Amino acid sequence: MAVGLKAPESLNPVADIRLGTACAGIKYPDRRDVVVFELAGKSSCAAVFTRNAFCAAPVVVARDHLRHQSPRYFVINTGNANAGTGESGERDARATCEALAGLTGCEPQQVLPFSTGVIGEALPMTPLLAGLEPALESLAADNWVAAAEGIMTTDTLPKGCSETLEIDGQRITVTGIAKGAGMIRPDMATMLAFVATDAAIDAPQLQALLQQAVDQSFNRITVDGDTSTNDACLLVATGRSGVTLDSSNQALLGAVINRVCRTQAQAIVRDGEGATKFVTIEVQGGRDAHECLQVAYTIAHSPLVKTALFASDPNWGRILAAVGRAGIAALDLEAVRILLGDVCIVEQGGRAASYTESAGQAVMDRAEIRIRVELGRGEAAETVWTTDLSYDYVKINAEYRT
Amino acid sequence: MAVGLKAPESLNPVADIRLGTACAGIKYPDRRDVVVFELAGKSSCAAVFTRNAFCAAPVVVARDHLRHQSPRYFVINTGNANAGTGESGERDARATCEALAGLTGCEPQQVLPFSTGVIGEALPMTPLLAGLEPALESLAADNWVAAAEGIMTTDTLPKGCSETLEIDGQRITVTGIAKGAGMIRPDMATMLAFVATDAAIDAPQLQALLQQAVDQSFNRITVDGDTSTNDACLLVATGRSGVTLDSSNQALLGAVINRVCRTQAQAIVRDGEGATKFVTIEVQGGRDAHECLQVAYTIAHSPLVKTALFASDPNWGRILAAVGRAGIAALDLEAVRILLGDVCIVEQGGRAASYTESAGQAVMDRAEIRIRVELGRGEAAETVWTTDLSYDYVKINAEYRT
Repeated sequence: MAVGLKAPESLNPVADIRLGTACAGIKYPDRRDVVVFELAGKSSCAAVFTRNAFCAAPVVVARDHLRHQSPRYFVINTGNANAGTGESGERDARATCEALAGLTGCEPQQVLPFSTGVIGEALPMTPLLAGLEPALESLAADNWVAAAEGIMTTDTLPKGCSETLEIDGQRITVTGIAKGAGMIRPDMATMLAFVATDAAIDAPQLQALLQQAVDQSFNRITVDGDTSTNDACLLVATGRSGVTLDSSNQALLGAVINRVCRTQAQAIVRDGEGATKFVTIEVQGGRDAHECLQVAYTIAHSPLVKTALFASDPNWGRILAAVGRAGIAALDLEAVRILLGDVCIVEQGGRAASYTESAGQAVMDRAEIRIRVELGRGEAAETVWTTDLSYDYVKINAEYRT
Repeated sequence: MAVGLKAPESLNPVADIRLGTACAGIKYPDRRDVVVFELAGKSSCAAVFTRNAFCAAPVVVARDHLRHQSPRYFVINTGNANAGTGESGERDARATCEALAGLTGCEPQQVLPFSTGVIGEALPMTPLLAGLEPALESLAADNWVAAAEGIMTTDTLPKGCSETLEIDGQRITVTGIAKGAGMIRPDMATMLAFVATDAAIDAPQLQALLQQAVDQSFNRITVDGDTSTNDACLLVATGRSGVTLDSSNQALLGAVINRVCRTQAQAIVRDGEGATKFVTIEVQGGRDAHECLQVAYTIAHSPLVKTALFASDPNWGRILAAVGRAGIAALDLEAVRILLGDVCIVEQGGRAASYTESAGQAVMDRAEIRIRVELGRGEAAETVWTTDLSYDYVKINAEYRT
């Protein structure tokens, strides 16, 4: 059901990173559900985590470990989020790190744990721990696609992309994988993303690059407005390409990292639970970014707009009503324009004189739809991406645990 | 599909108010779609309208008329919202008032227009105007149930209730009718409510009573988070009972008006589009009402919570995740308790030790479900009412115009 999305056929290895997977039977038999990343000793690492107050045990532990050590391993399980599990959940996350440290000879604090799946059930430690050794045995540099499969939950397709660029005649690789399909909204959803490059960047610079990339990608997507307890996005720089970034060429790499993150963020939306449409919402002419986002998310979260998108119904009145209730102070209705694709549907406070139902219908019939709102009161602009709301969204989420 | 809701068998007349209905064929043949209220000359009238910036033409005109005159007539049509219709929509709303004024001999400004239905299509003036005369011919004091039917859109049942009270040995009647099923959220949804009493209350007192009642009823319900362009709630006091309200007995009437409004607000939720559950969300122990409502609405609007309710799935992790992302600063997770009915599901940061899946399941299997969140940081408390999110919600809203 994913909209305009294909599984990656291959992803470029990043020097000094190896990945391993195992089928540990955490929730289902015979599917990859444990993934291990191994980073070379000199890697820098930046991270962004969920802002949900009830953050999951692995998020608590990963944040803590990052404060003390530079990571050598990530261990990721799917099928169970280890969230809402209290103190015993934290013990389980720490025990997972200790087990991996015991097998590899690193410090437990050099391991970061990640979990997604059902909330509130104890992490099944026996299969998870049993999966660590086969995952380590399978470590290889070209395992990115297998790892992308190993972190999926309700995703229908693995997600990942690679780009390369040249700086001073030397080649730099950026490769990322991500998972997530439901519970997606700004401030990171039930999504995990792991992006790596072989450029050499120090940790503060890397954190700045990651924050900028996340703000233009994973923090601009929404499927259902729910923010998960487990979201995390990691950016690793191994330095093995021999290219050291400085202020003169950092922007080049930043642009590629942005694009890799945006492609993956959009992949999450394209694979949104029950999605039949990929929707780009552009809000322009706002006084500031905040009010542009307020309008964009009010549209993106409106169940009435989303069901109209599902029905391919150019029911522009629902978009207009959403703009009207977005809470923008002193909005001049006469100055607002709303467009479906290139078709102007609203201007001067009502339906555009030039609008025809058939022109609106032609846009709505597409699988990829752009809604543009011009607020006509400033220079700020923001874009978010979302999906429609279909029977299958209800089905997937009503039957998730059964 | 309505949850625990019955059509009113009879509603008590309110002295000095007559109601008439007609089948004007505005959208469908042979159904009541035009309703006229006639108020006696001495009535006071209070009103609350939508806060949607794109408010509909009838809202603009009704507000304007209320500033100039005390109303003698309300004219309500269903099937078309006359919203997003720009200047011509306003002309149509004014022309409707002029036509009714011409037929009755009052001033056009003594008529208030109300419309709900599809947004963005021109009001079908020919059938609407043709319906005014038969509606006037049918004016009668005991037509409240017929009027409740005549204002329905996607409602499956008419909504109304009556109460009486005695003050100084004299009987006072309060009767109200309401409509609304989708696009329901605080700040008034696509809902109309008309409440009347035969007590004598001046306009400022009446406005205060209405605002208080609305804040505890129509502004505490949500079906899908969408706020309509057309909402209005009117409270009329005819004074014909001979009982004049003063500060000593106003609270008695206020309590009855609150109850009549709350019953109708709950009726709207019980008849929520596709509803299979009636859900009460109580948030207690907040620092102020605002943060209680923030938590309550985050739960009430979460598609993941709503689909779990539809599935009767005690997936309490989704409730916990919603509380966590409600944006409450410095929330102490250890102090938060979450209960499903009387079953404690979350305490001390995780699943309650006493919780069993079967106890949670027993609550979720009910049609009426109470979710209680104790924030443990203050004395404020708020309650909101909502529904689940079902296949039928999607079906109704994806097929509304087809």
